[in-house]
Amino acid sequence: MTTPTVVALSGGVGGAKLASGLMRVLPHGTLRVIVNTGDDFMHLGLHISPDVDTTLYTLAGLANPETGWGRRDETWSFMEAMELLGGDTWFRLGDRDLALHVERTRRLAAGETPSQITADVAHRFGITADILPMTDDTVRTMVRTDEGELSFQDYFVRRRCRPRVASLRFDGAADARPAPRARDALRDRNLSAIVICPSNPYLSIDPILSVDGICDLLHESAAPVVAVSPLVGGRAVKGPTAKIMAELGLPVSAQEVARHYDGVLDGFVVDARPSAAACELDLPLLVTDTLMETLPDRDRLARETLEFAATLRKRRAA
Amino acid sequence: MTTPTVVALSGGVGGAKLASGLMRVLPHGTLRVIVNTGDDFMHLGLHISPDVDTTLYTLAGLANPETGWGRRDETWSFMEAMELLGGDTWFRLGDRDLALHVERTRRLAAGETPSQITADVAHRFGITADILPMTDDTVRTMVRTDEGELSFQDYFVRRRCRPRVASLRFDGAADARPAPRARDALRDRNLSAIVICPSNPYLSIDPILSVDGICDLLHESAAPVVAVSPLVGGRAVKGPTAKIMAELGLPVSAQEVARHYDGVLDGFVVDARPSAAACELDLPLLVTDTLMETLPDRDRLARETLEFAATLRKRRAA
Repeated sequence: MTTPTVVALSGGVGGAKLASGLMRVLPHGTLRVIVNTGDDFMHLGLHISPDVDTTLYTLAGLANPETGWGRRDETWSFMEAMELLGGDTWFRLGDRDLALHVERTRRLAAGETPSQITADVAHRFGITADILPMTDDTVRTMVRTDEGELSFQDYFVRRRCRPRVASLRFDGAADARPAPRARDALRDRNLSAIVICPSNPYLSIDPILSVDGICDLLHESAAPVVAVSPLVGGRAVKGPTAKIMAELGLPVSAQEVARHYDGVLDGFVVDARPSAAACELDLPLLVTDTLMETLPDRDRLARETLEFAATLRKRRAA
Repeated sequence: MTTPTVVALSGGVGGAKLASGLMRVLPHGTLRVIVNTGDDFMHLGLHISPDVDTTLYTLAGLANPETGWGRRDETWSFMEAMELLGGDTWFRLGDRDLALHVERTRRLAAGETPSQITADVAHRFGITADILPMTDDTVRTMVRTDEGELSFQDYFVRRRCRPRVASLRFDGAADARPAPRARDALRDRNLSAIVICPSNPYLSIDPILSVDGICDLLHESAAPVVAVSPLVGGRAVKGPTAKIMAELGLPVSAQEVARHYDGVLDGFVVDARPSAAACELDLPLLVTDTLMETLPDRDRLARETLEFAATLRKRRAA
């Protein structure tokens, strides 16, 4: 007997919410979440992997519901002491959160891969899905702005997305190979659906799709690819998706998001709220409530997305 | 006009207490504390320098008065989270304390020396003495025991000094050079006294004296060298001094401590409490209350030691 599996491609908070819904509605061990690592960076000598951490914390039920990043029940003594030492404090590292960064950095230095470390942490956190960094190689999202080219965290956290974005590039992506377990997840013959989570298409999903070979694996898979638009009522729920679309000279619409994923999608999920631009697409469409404010919201959207995917046929063969 | 300077050689808690007394009774900027770095080790990928940290925290008034290590007003979220991650937790790292280890590790990786980093931290902590790591090179105290040869922290913290000590060696000491500022402090023409603090002679002071050239600098200096015995009433106030002396087959007495420093000392300070063995030495002796329970205790012992040193003549010329 074969159990169908599902792959989700995800970035930060919005994607992790849907991934946690998918984990809960699917049989244990059948969800594989491929996570963006283009946001990874070295800070205070520590290897920080923000989207992987957000995914781990969210799926473990440890995420901070107020901030959208870091852990709940967090304390901040480290940051206070670091301030007195004159160290960098623009990237807020909670005391509990820090344990993950220190342990990851130590294990990477000892020769373990991001994939191995992430799998072990997910296991210790009791997570019943596989959390798979997109690659074990180094990819760095670089943001070209009116203030020059910035590393991702410099743009996103230090400058709070204020600079105007002109373009993005994913340094190292062309030479990066998909992590073996991410590749295997996409090649799985029991794969029944590939869900592109409602993460920022430009900052969170594009780095995954830019890793050499991942787009081909999406095409080659017999499973339909369905994306959930991150726009609700013509705006991003969180983060700079809409701002970046406007700065790139694009219409801020779900239709434009679908167009961005052109050639990859077999179906598209958009929010039912009225938005500035109507969604006219030559693509199977699910119109529903995509706002995930509660855990039941996540589960419902996950279930609807999976049911929608089950109705889809692959548009292009390998 | 020249201001007399004082050098203290120090290890952990006991030494740091006297050093803090010396700092308070001396004019600002005239005390230089040369600190043992043989206890330094890598843990969780972080460079930890326990005696330097104890000295910094004690002289800054940030030390934890209950534990004798780490910081006061400490929190422990990091350790709790590390436990969940399955990381090492035998060496307790508080959240505030951690900032110093992370920042030191980062700055060492960026090419700064332990001396530079320590000086900067001391300055930020408002410390009016110079805290000088004995060397910027790597020296590692190794403890040969009935359970095999152990690294210092393995012996001292993980096994809580339980193994029987057969001998000690200071790996790297023969090739280590005194840190430039430690060397300059000992060569200072205005140096008026060298105080060996009541630290463990075998674990804390010997590593300093084993660094190539430091013994010569002590001999060559015109300043008298005076040691304060760490034994009070025939016992160590804290730590394994007495236990180690017994295991090495030595009499547990101040007299033996003085004998251990033979050829280096111009004077010796012993506690007035009756002890198992009387102190009969061919050496100028100050017998006083050496127990430092309060800040005024530290200041009084510091003042008495300095006054005693001022009466001493160098026994051997360069």
